[in-house]
Amino acid sequence: MGASSPIGVFDSGVGGLTVLKELRRQLAGESTIYLGDEARMPYGPRPADEVIAFTRQAMRWFATRDCKLIVLACNTATAQALEAVRDESAVPIIGVVRPGAAAAIASSARRSIGVVATVGTVRSGAYVRAVRDLDPLCDVTQQACPRLVPIVESGKAGTPEALDAVREYVAPLLSEGGVVTPVVDTLLLGCTHYPLLREEFTKVAGPGVRVVDSATTTALAVREVLASHRLLADGATPTHRVFATGPVERFSEVARTIFGEKLPEVEAAALT
Amino acid sequence: MGASSPIGVFDSGVGGLTVLKELRRQLAGESTIYLGDEARMPYGPRPADEVIAFTRQAMRWFATRDCKLIVLACNTATAQALEAVRDESAVPIIGVVRPGAAAAIASSARRSIGVVATVGTVRSGAYVRAVRDLDPLCDVTQQACPRLVPIVESGKAGTPEALDAVREYVAPLLSEGGVVTPVVDTLLLGCTHYPLLREEFTKVAGPGVRVVDSATTTALAVREVLASHRLLADGATPTHRVFATGPVERFSEVARTIFGEKLPEVEAAALT
Repeated sequence: MGASSPIGVFDSGVGGLTVLKELRRQLAGESTIYLGDEARMPYGPRPADEVIAFTRQAMRWFATRDCKLIVLACNTATAQALEAVRDESAVPIIGVVRPGAAAAIASSARRSIGVVATVGTVRSGAYVRAVRDLDPLCDVTQQACPRLVPIVESGKAGTPEALDAVREYVAPLLSEGGVVTPVVDTLLLGCTHYPLLREEFTKVAGPGVRVVDSATTTALAVREVLASHRLLADGATPTHRVFATGPVERFSEVARTIFGEKLPEVEAAALT
Repeated sequence: MGASSPIGVFDSGVGGLTVLKELRRQLAGESTIYLGDEARMPYGPRPADEVIAFTRQAMRWFATRDCKLIVLACNTATAQALEAVRDESAVPIIGVVRPGAAAAIASSARRSIGVVATVGTVRSGAYVRAVRDLDPLCDVTQQACPRLVPIVESGKAGTPEALDAVREYVAPLLSEGGVVTPVVDTLLLGCTHYPLLREEFTKVAGPGVRVVDSATTTALAVREVLASHRLLADGATPTHRVFATGPVERFSEVARTIFGEKLPEVEAAALT
């Protein structure tokens, strides 16, 4: 394991590709290995001990592939499993919750943030804690959106069904008892699948609400951690591989809408 | 050097105390040592090789004090000296430019950022590069503000002189050829002294422009780097020391306006 080893990026499905895309743009010299646990997505509704067990399996899988750092590009896994797998890992593991919270704090002038996330992430309270750690006076309102990951994973981003679902979930964050000004001024996409519905979120949120995600600040954390370990790649010839458990065809189809032609062929993986 | 060793925080004067304050809030279990090179402030107008030499001296000073990580809480030093001192240091060094850029990107809906900074930081182009690395399509307009650090260091924050100076510097970022909408929607305080003039900046910028700084995202980077090295303190009994080169009395006076009674007695230091 050294500076030319790849960065591992893990998600329950295709959502983490939004983080991978930002990592590849900001750290263009780095090799990457992506793993989507497509066979067992969504993670959002699963009990915490199951999410921890699955995440642990994924970390073991990355360990056999010589990764120098692993990104938990899944909010549900970060919220429920980061502490556990960090303690066990020989390499640094970066989650997306604290970076997401920092981005939301930077965005929110009125210190009032709405977080949309999976049931598991909302239940864990991880975002409420992370935002309050950064700014104890910041209001955080959470909204679980159980239908959105299945919508993204079935390739329905951009459809009226997606827009209706987003509207239903976001409406309560925008108005309260007939108040005209939105309750929150920042909507944090607390699930890495949701940037694939950014158009829907932006449209529903309107011009007074900023829609932010964790990709930029997560890439910042990755760069700083790699630099501190003297593990930044020299950028010679980076390689990229993408793996999915379960049906590779469906994964590839949705993934190409994110990455276009730049996505390498998706390979099959098994987690045990 | 271990998890209970202190975090070193360096600035040319009192400005870095705004970063120290955020670090102490977010990482309450950590011990800290602050060093302000008051005798040689401001760094902003100095040539790059002098800033590098002074920063190198400071890093050596922290090395003798068993610090586990050092924060360059000075944009001028980060912009001009971070790469050089990082290569030489046995411990991680975190700068404030990339974190500041990430905060500005998170804040700017229209992807148009104004950066106010010292002459040295502006001349280095570090913020333009850092923002463009994160978002190549983001507009960045820089404004050097040479009078502001001396105003803060002489205790004049909150005076009409401070407001006039801020207005003079910020005005060109807000209107261009009679345009009513501000040119930028985010004003990044690219100098750690400037949060001490936040009221002035917020007043001049008006409600349509968000004023952000690097403190929150810098603290995020520090936490992630410490966690990755398994160097987060267990939080038993953190200790805090503050050192200044040059006139300790004046430094203490300005510093107390930031920290109030919580600031430890300022001790004298010499850099060679």
